[in-house]
Amino acid sequence: MIKGKQSIEFENTPYVIGYACTAGKKEGEGPLGSYIDTISEDAMFGMQTWEEAESHMQKLTAQTLLDKSGLTAEDIRYIFAGDLLGQLIATSYGIMDLQIPLFGVYGACSTMGETMALASMSVAAGYAPKAVALASSHFASAEKQFRFPLEYGNQRPLAATWTVTGCGSVVLSEDDSMHDGSGKRAHIRVAGITTGKIVDYGVKDSMNMGACMAPAAAELIAQNMSDFGAGDDYYDLIITGDLGLVGRTIILDLLERKGIHIEDRYSDCGIEIFDGDKQDTHAGGSGCGCSAVTLCAKILPMIEQGRLGRVLFVPTGALMSPTSFNEGKSVPGIAHGIVLEHV
Amino acid sequence: MIKGKQSIEFENTPYVIGYACTAGKKEGEGPLGSYIDTISEDAMFGMQTWEEAESHMQKLTAQTLLDKSGLTAEDIRYIFAGDLLGQLIATSYGIMDLQIPLFGVYGACSTMGETMALASMSVAAGYAPKAVALASSHFASAEKQFRFPLEYGNQRPLAATWTVTGCGSVVLSEDDSMHDGSGKRAHIRVAGITTGKIVDYGVKDSMNMGACMAPAAAELIAQNMSDFGAGDDYYDLIITGDLGLVGRTIILDLLERKGIHIEDRYSDCGIEIFDGDKQDTHAGGSGCGCSAVTLCAKILPMIEQGRLGRVLFVPTGALMSPTSFNEGKSVPGIAHGIVLEHV
Repeated sequence: MIKGKQSIEFENTPYVIGYACTAGKKEGEGPLGSYIDTISEDAMFGMQTWEEAESHMQKLTAQTLLDKSGLTAEDIRYIFAGDLLGQLIATSYGIMDLQIPLFGVYGACSTMGETMALASMSVAAGYAPKAVALASSHFASAEKQFRFPLEYGNQRPLAATWTVTGCGSVVLSEDDSMHDGSGKRAHIRVAGITTGKIVDYGVKDSMNMGACMAPAAAELIAQNMSDFGAGDDYYDLIITGDLGLVGRTIILDLLERKGIHIEDRYSDCGIEIFDGDKQDTHAGGSGCGCSAVTLCAKILPMIEQGRLGRVLFVPTGALMSPTSFNEGKSVPGIAHGIVLEHV
Repeated sequence: MIKGKQSIEFENTPYVIGYACTAGKKEGEGPLGSYIDTISEDAMFGMQTWEEAESHMQKLTAQTLLDKSGLTAEDIRYIFAGDLLGQLIATSYGIMDLQIPLFGVYGACSTMGETMALASMSVAAGYAPKAVALASSHFASAEKQFRFPLEYGNQRPLAATWTVTGCGSVVLSEDDSMHDGSGKRAHIRVAGITTGKIVDYGVKDSMNMGACMAPAAAELIAQNMSDFGAGDDYYDLIITGDLGLVGRTIILDLLERKGIHIEDRYSDCGIEIFDGDKQDTHAGGSGCGCSAVTLCAKILPMIEQGRLGRVLFVPTGALMSPTSFNEGKSVPGIAHGIVLEHV
């Protein structure tokens, strides 16, 4: 059960029996656009504030998830959910109406990894026949929270990433029965997890999140491979959350120094979700929604279809706030690893 | 294992093999003062900012916990921790140096309940031989985050509560061996948990948190008693987190209407931690630190000594942020229940 220093290998592996994602217009115009369940042309999602828009996106995603999975809120024992805003308000106001017992979690942009880890642990332990993991971010609510007013139109350095407007969610189940009417069995399972420690290399540039988070992701991947006795070719794909182009170079370099050579099977959700050349997103996408949407729009379908056999999904988070930034603190990183397998 | 609609009754009950708390000067002058491990006369805890002070308090508490328990950081598989600040910065910077795999959680002032629930679930499932649950709040960092600058010296309505400067933490273990050199066995176990849903009665007054949170606490207690088949005298003590004097009246009234009569065994950590008449704290104490410190300074020692046989510990949280308040949103509540027993 316990595997190595920081991992769990599940005896009763939880199955992914449903997934859904929602995103904004820009994400819809990107490479994953046609695989996203719902795309809103209106960045406000019909609401009055950016925060309400993000909440509404969560609500919409959770409802789509239940509908696609053939389930109702009563079928779900727990929901593990989070977002980037102070005091998780996108989550609290977004999923309140579902009336599902809630564990609110905060792992910055690693939140989808944290929610999936906890939901998987609960299902595998028999605490929940079915549990939902969900995470979101919204470009405008995040810019307002962390950076500049949109109206200011600030210039962005090339190392900066673009916060994804999106929400992703999965249902984990103790058995592989699908309830979507297809009569199929589930083809995706969570084989294990690796839980991250906070890693701080002292980087203070919040406009270069890739550099802040890459060390945590490198340590997490190395620890996961050590815990699972994995060689360089154990995974068909190792995909981080939102390191972007700058973080990509750093993490591959850090892993090379540890003797791990995965360049031929490494990717990053922040690189996958936008077409950087055409969409002016600089280093790539970021935010909880970046890994959550890429997971649900691309990675899970590919595992389901058997095009990927085993994937290490590693959402990455930068643990800072506007206050910590203004007080001159560094930006430590964290990463959470989820081992997904085709069955 | 699964018990009723929202609860778990653990088969392998986790044991509390250590607990520690730290608090500020005002809390030290209150009724629990002599039971708090460390009291700092300096509200800044020797640091430069309020946020650093809260982080330092977490670090100090975790170290005291390990020392009292005869453990080192390497003995702890996971830490579940949180605080009230945006993006959990008190936690990230506070416990970073411990280098323990981290699950950051946010449940507003219910955080100690949420961390204890998740840590107990992990230990009982065999995922962690030992896990730590920790939560903190600091009066000055919370006032700065949620209310007015301290220098403004605003008048506070009588329904307002006073955020506790304090941090509490416990070690949960899969077996009852104590490592503190006493040669004793643990006398406290976590028999079960009940996980809360978000409850919103539409109250918008963030200066009357008791009224915002009481409905969630009442529903949680009623659900717990239903799930465990508990009569009015099942618990020796039912203690909420920070409803204060206003919330006390409301929750007892709400429970009476559900046919639950627990006035003779009900208390609230916010009422216990300060002497309201002498300490000018109005409705009582609040914040994650309120329930966390009261748990570690008073409730756990009384269970350990056998003066309390079975306790329902119900930290309560108000799910709002400065942004949601300014945007005119209501303040929904949540509560998490932990069933503690003397063994």
